[in-house]
Amino acid sequence: MVNYSKLTKEQRAQLFEEASSAYEALKSKGVSVDMTRGRPSKEQLQIAMPMLQNAGSYNYVTDGGDARNYGEPAGITAARELFAKLMEVERSEVIVFDGSSLDIMYNLIQFAMQFGVRGGTPWNKLDRVKFLCPAPGYDRHFSICENFGIEMITVPMLEDGPDMDMVESLVGSDDSIKGMWCVPKYSNPTGIVFSDEVVTRMAKLKPAAKDFRVFWDNAYIVHGLYGDDDKLKNIFEVAKSVGSEDMIYELVSTSKITFAGSGVAALATSEANVADLLKRIFFKQINPNKVNQVMHVAFLKDVENIKKIMSQHADILRPKFELFERKMSAAFGDCEEVKWSKPRGGYFISVNVNGAAKRIVSLAGEAGVKFTAAGSTYPYKRDALDSNIRIAPSVPSMEEMEFAIDVLISSIKIALLES
Amino acid sequence: MVNYSKLTKEQRAQLFEEASSAYEALKSKGVSVDMTRGRPSKEQLQIAMPMLQNAGSYNYVTDGGDARNYGEPAGITAARELFAKLMEVERSEVIVFDGSSLDIMYNLIQFAMQFGVRGGTPWNKLDRVKFLCPAPGYDRHFSICENFGIEMITVPMLEDGPDMDMVESLVGSDDSIKGMWCVPKYSNPTGIVFSDEVVTRMAKLKPAAKDFRVFWDNAYIVHGLYGDDDKLKNIFEVAKSVGSEDMIYELVSTSKITFAGSGVAALATSEANVADLLKRIFFKQINPNKVNQVMHVAFLKDVENIKKIMSQHADILRPKFELFERKMSAAFGDCEEVKWSKPRGGYFISVNVNGAAKRIVSLAGEAGVKFTAAGSTYPYKRDALDSNIRIAPSVPSMEEMEFAIDVLISSIKIALLES
Repeated sequence: MVNYSKLTKEQRAQLFEEASSAYEALKSKGVSVDMTRGRPSKEQLQIAMPMLQNAGSYNYVTDGGDARNYGEPAGITAARELFAKLMEVERSEVIVFDGSSLDIMYNLIQFAMQFGVRGGTPWNKLDRVKFLCPAPGYDRHFSICENFGIEMITVPMLEDGPDMDMVESLVGSDDSIKGMWCVPKYSNPTGIVFSDEVVTRMAKLKPAAKDFRVFWDNAYIVHGLYGDDDKLKNIFEVAKSVGSEDMIYELVSTSKITFAGSGVAALATSEANVADLLKRIFFKQINPNKVNQVMHVAFLKDVENIKKIMSQHADILRPKFELFERKMSAAFGDCEEVKWSKPRGGYFISVNVNGAAKRIVSLAGEAGVKFTAAGSTYPYKRDALDSNIRIAPSVPSMEEMEFAIDVLISSIKIALLES
Repeated sequence: MVNYSKLTKEQRAQLFEEASSAYEALKSKGVSVDMTRGRPSKEQLQIAMPMLQNAGSYNYVTDGGDARNYGEPAGITAARELFAKLMEVERSEVIVFDGSSLDIMYNLIQFAMQFGVRGGTPWNKLDRVKFLCPAPGYDRHFSICENFGIEMITVPMLEDGPDMDMVESLVGSDDSIKGMWCVPKYSNPTGIVFSDEVVTRMAKLKPAAKDFRVFWDNAYIVHGLYGDDDKLKNIFEVAKSVGSEDMIYELVSTSKITFAGSGVAALATSEANVADLLKRIFFKQINPNKVNQVMHVAFLKDVENIKKIMSQHADILRPKFELFERKMSAAFGDCEEVKWSKPRGGYFISVNVNGAAKRIVSLAGEAGVKFTAAGSTYPYKRDALDSNIRIAPSVPSMEEMEFAIDVLISSIKIALLES
């Protein structure tokens, strides 16, 4: 194993020289690659074009009325049914909204702030409201908390999910803890899948706060790179067995199945929560875009077909993830200071180099490769170890990926050797 | 002129007899007609089907990037441009959202409640927040106020808009008045168009509250029954001349141009407000449904073409409004106790019979014809005179309209004669 800090002065100087000239050569190419966000590539977006091509021939008159007209605030029956099957819950436990699951989560929290949860005190009226934030995690979750002045408590992400000893102890003892973020499958950015034990312990949490809610953001529910091999335990199955289903808000969206931000997003929760939320939504919106829901149901058809569609996405994404793994292994396979995730799904790879993330992201940026700002994967953008870099390999072409990884590799080497 | 209350006892008895037997004959038909909401008819919804039929051939790659991917939180440039032309403002003054203008208005108020307006105190932290509510008006406006505990002050609607003497005096003196609802063109439910003088006085309001906002809900901006004859003065033109454009939120939507609740809705306001709102929206949503925006721009094309599309809607709606006018004139043309509006656009006819609205709506309901609940057009559902009935003639067929108006007429007669 190489340990950069243990090399001789001469070895370091030579390697630094090599890395610097490799870096300068790459930089001089003037290529720009944006890997900041988990966006689908153009090639992936083409997969859903038949949905638009056939839009004129779908049947917009549903059992609930005419989807082109007002009505059905919880979404069309067929869409609720489809998302229920996808999340393995009942149709009556699902509301189908417009395209953004971020918007659903934001609204759920804003409802809680303004009106309280199921008769509880509005969170706006409490001295403190806290959320547990497994980290590294999804920056947009954390920014919702910042927006509302919700205090974030960082919980370490372990190999099989958040540190559940810590979660149980905090949630069970502090009634100002009102929520917790989770991306339980192919987690953003580490790619891990919560183990059955973690899912079970999550569903069996005994929160001190009655209005505590788990935001189970299942953004990558069918986003495996290797088929449907990684099975996430159904949290509602456990929750229903212990009567905790009011505690769970599960979110999914088609942003990475059809069109990013122009798809359909859905919430699964208890029937009692659904009824309560529909009363709130009444004041806000007559119905979601049901024409888009008809189009999505007609195109996606059923869970089996969604999996077929997702295997086309996987075929496009997998080579990019594998290229990353190959090149990083070749460069740092024997180096104990550079760690990276080997995700089997989702949209991100997580790279960890303690004390060097900011410098690496900055170097890469100067050479034309934009990564998400270092620290973004932590609450308050504070990565105590300055370690985590989030890589989003979906947008670049294979050639761009080659270039970007080369830039990353030389940037990592420079950062390790210059210090 | 007939005055039902001045008839002799015998005359009244005879007319009551006639009305009752007409009513019973209609009731026995067992027909059901729903005229509760301003929904487009099936025939109208067909007008926009080419938008779906051609959805596969539109160009989804715009100057701002790929509309099928994340980005452009203010909507695609072409959609902002189109709505800017429709509202006669600049593109930079427009944000294009998803389908529901109700949702935009709700969010604007929720932002103000939670965060304040442009640096002002969050409305949640004030002892009282009041809105001016010209009435009769749109029930969904009033229910947003009820939802947030905003106190509603009723302002009478006159022939040319709200009573501006009252509005100026209240807004100028009470800094707890933070907003005002307006449907300035073909107002819901009276159908009136605000006069140039009213628009000018609205734009020149000098509110005591710096964070006072006018919700200029221009829902029927191109919804004339007789072409483009009724011109609403552009409030921004006046506002810009006096520097009050921060005060105006103008809303439009395509719910009654393409598909109800599945269209596109837009906000026009000052550039400074747009910039401020985009900062808020960042936490909430990555972008609106831009695929739907491309479809709408491709189908609607330009303002001229929108007017052509709207003339097709007018051709379907006009006969229903005219049938109403004909039958009501024949029944009550010489009766001073029954008044009704003769709108030149929009979706509603307003009927006024003092002291009898509840009874009439109830009688009609028993005979199979559902009108919006009496009182709904007033804040707190309190119509002090129990006078106003909102008629939504768009959904029923001409035959159903015949039936519904006959039921209404006999119900009015019974209500007037039984008292």
